[in-house]
Amino acid sequence: MNAAISADADIASLMESLGRAAVKAARVLAQATTQSKNAALVSAAAAIRLQAPTIKSANRIDLEQARARDLSPALLDRLLLNDQRIESIAQGLEDIAALADPIGTKMAEWTRPNGLLIQRLRVPLGVVGIIYESRPNVTADAGALCLKSGNAVILRGGSESQHSSRAIHECLLMGLRAAQLPEAAIQLVPTPDRAAVGKMLSGMVDYIDVLVPRGGKSLVARVQQEARVPVIGHLEGLCHVYVDKDADIAMACEIVKNAKLRRTGICGAAETLLIDRAALSTHLRPVIAALLDAGCEVRGDESVRAADARVVAATEQDWHTEYLDAIIAARIVDGVDGAVEHIERYGSAHTDSIVTANAQTAERFLANVDSAIVLHNASTQFADGGEFGMGAEIGISTDKFHARGPVGVEQLTSYKYIVRGTGQVRA
Amino acid sequence: MNAAISADADIASLMESLGRAAVKAARVLAQATTQSKNAALVSAAAAIRLQAPTIKSANRIDLEQARARDLSPALLDRLLLNDQRIESIAQGLEDIAALADPIGTKMAEWTRPNGLLIQRLRVPLGVVGIIYESRPNVTADAGALCLKSGNAVILRGGSESQHSSRAIHECLLMGLRAAQLPEAAIQLVPTPDRAAVGKMLSGMVDYIDVLVPRGGKSLVARVQQEARVPVIGHLEGLCHVYVDKDADIAMACEIVKNAKLRRTGICGAAETLLIDRAALSTHLRPVIAALLDAGCEVRGDESVRAADARVVAATEQDWHTEYLDAIIAARIVDGVDGAVEHIERYGSAHTDSIVTANAQTAERFLANVDSAIVLHNASTQFADGGEFGMGAEIGISTDKFHARGPVGVEQLTSYKYIVRGTGQVRA
Repeated sequence: MNAAISADADIASLMESLGRAAVKAARVLAQATTQSKNAALVSAAAAIRLQAPTIKSANRIDLEQARARDLSPALLDRLLLNDQRIESIAQGLEDIAALADPIGTKMAEWTRPNGLLIQRLRVPLGVVGIIYESRPNVTADAGALCLKSGNAVILRGGSESQHSSRAIHECLLMGLRAAQLPEAAIQLVPTPDRAAVGKMLSGMVDYIDVLVPRGGKSLVARVQQEARVPVIGHLEGLCHVYVDKDADIAMACEIVKNAKLRRTGICGAAETLLIDRAALSTHLRPVIAALLDAGCEVRGDESVRAADARVVAATEQDWHTEYLDAIIAARIVDGVDGAVEHIERYGSAHTDSIVTANAQTAERFLANVDSAIVLHNASTQFADGGEFGMGAEIGISTDKFHARGPVGVEQLTSYKYIVRGTGQVRA
Repeated sequence: MNAAISADADIASLMESLGRAAVKAARVLAQATTQSKNAALVSAAAAIRLQAPTIKSANRIDLEQARARDLSPALLDRLLLNDQRIESIAQGLEDIAALADPIGTKMAEWTRPNGLLIQRLRVPLGVVGIIYESRPNVTADAGALCLKSGNAVILRGGSESQHSSRAIHECLLMGLRAAQLPEAAIQLVPTPDRAAVGKMLSGMVDYIDVLVPRGGKSLVARVQQEARVPVIGHLEGLCHVYVDKDADIAMACEIVKNAKLRRTGICGAAETLLIDRAALSTHLRPVIAALLDAGCEVRGDESVRAADARVVAATEQDWHTEYLDAIIAARIVDGVDGAVEHIERYGSAHTDSIVTANAQTAERFLANVDSAIVLHNASTQFADGGEFGMGAEIGISTDKFHARGPVGVEQLTSYKYIVRGTGQVRA
């Protein structure tokens, strides 16, 4: 017991030293030029390519340990780094270097009747804490996004990928050194001890300005429960496609198939299909058949089951479920208002789409569905910073506070007001 | 004990019913027209004027109870409503009606190479919870700002002002009814029980989108400690004025006097004066004399004390103190970098000002002081939404997350993405 207490105290003091170093680095980063930040990113990309063999060796250790612990094939695949994935990490760093630098941007400027000139300028948030699960590429992506947006970052990756993350982190440090930026700009928590996460959540209020959890429901829930600093949340994507009676049938089939099946494991994948009761005899059968023929399991209400013998029965739980798999829940709703009602009740305010040729119906859906992203005649799989043209992202926020939707470099910033006077005093 | 448990359960169920009603009202408000929101505000202003006698009677009850409890004269004054203050509440509602409606504003719009049209639109946050201390006018101000920004609000005012707040709230309800908006748009917690605050902080995650504490340090600290939903914080304003060696001496005297003494009780009042060591023989004496002659107590370091016999000795605690009174701490610093260092160490990231005629020195200060508002050659007392031309405000945020500086109607909003397609699916 004494050993445990002392270990916790050691972790606390370790994390505080990371915190202090991050705050100090953040001050330098806030004033760093775009050129030096980009130089660090481009050098880090070069280091990733040069160090590919080292990264792969480190990754082999993670994979062996994961196999020994009987991790699922899906998790092993997320963990794996091959040449192609390493090249894509390097490319990702270069892509972030190519993005516009948000820092210092004049967001607004106006002059008051008394002559005061007020400017609203974009500034970094300060220190970002990122807690993520096993994917080692997040180390590079998240580190680079924070650097580009002028923030210092403390990365706490999953223990399964610790060797891979460390090897990648070494390359980021080479980039920072090459650009003469402080190494504490991107710090990786050097211990897999879970106490480090607890400390980040509630014991580093003086050092961390915002926390970003990236991972499964239980991680995000823990962060939202325990965090004492602001959180950019990435809850589940329980996305819906609503097929209206006025939808083009072929378009509806294509969009539904793509929204569900293009990639089933991403947060923008559709999980529930809503079909207009007025489209029961026209759209229901072809849309369901398109899904079933493509190998998707369909769990339907009574009407959907009546349309195709391959449909299995849905339960109440299905409307609440983010499958992240080739399974979709399907039900009949009473027009656009019924769709809005269902989404309000079961959705996660992430991304929802309507397929209809009726402009008025579309506007009703777009206005009334209160989700980060609402689409008309397009696949939910477009829910992605890259697809939005915002460049790389740290995730899709389902919060309404601070950042909503894709969280890219701009969403990792704050602002400050600069007021230029000539001696004004207030009456 | 059973009675206490049952009372707590009653409060919990009462608060949940307020929460459910607020969520329902928020949906209506999000789609309400500017015209109907403004009509509610203008009608509420008329009701305030009509009901002035009722409001004053209610206020007398609060004042009597406050006197019986020996509240300080300052608190009694904050509680008092006279004809002039009631007229200013009504005028405030009309001013908010006259502000531009942020909701529905197109913040950005762009088209992707695949033809998708992406629009970023301003939407309300949803349900705002406001916890405030004794000033009864906050009931009207905060209620009106939330209504204008399309948010439902749950107001929890201090128990000292409960009768006054209820009378004002009645007028707001008259306005909502006149405009046919749901009464649950602006709800006042009908009990002074402290358990209601605890429930708002941690037991209404499903209903409240953001909390705004308005009050003293202990209230804000409790909210930041216990809240399970995002908070727009309004911590102390430990504001600084730095007088540089290149400052115009007369301007420095005017700005320092105004920053400290125009109103000493507001968060934008200066609390610490920093004087450039290089200005010791030129600026120090006249600036300190201007303060002392105006009746301000000056607590100085050794050099400041040497300048004027009336200066008393400052201790380390003084650099940390928000006096909200006619007292100022004063010390010598080593140029602009010394000023930045002092502000970084002791400041509250609220509002800080430099007085100098040297443009380069000014830029150094403006860039390096990490506060919500940084001024050049102007008084810190301009830290105010009205003075910024943003209209009424709910306070000045010292957070970097979501909203920084004055929190007006625009800062009480979020956004959503609307994506218009023609059948696009993702490759």
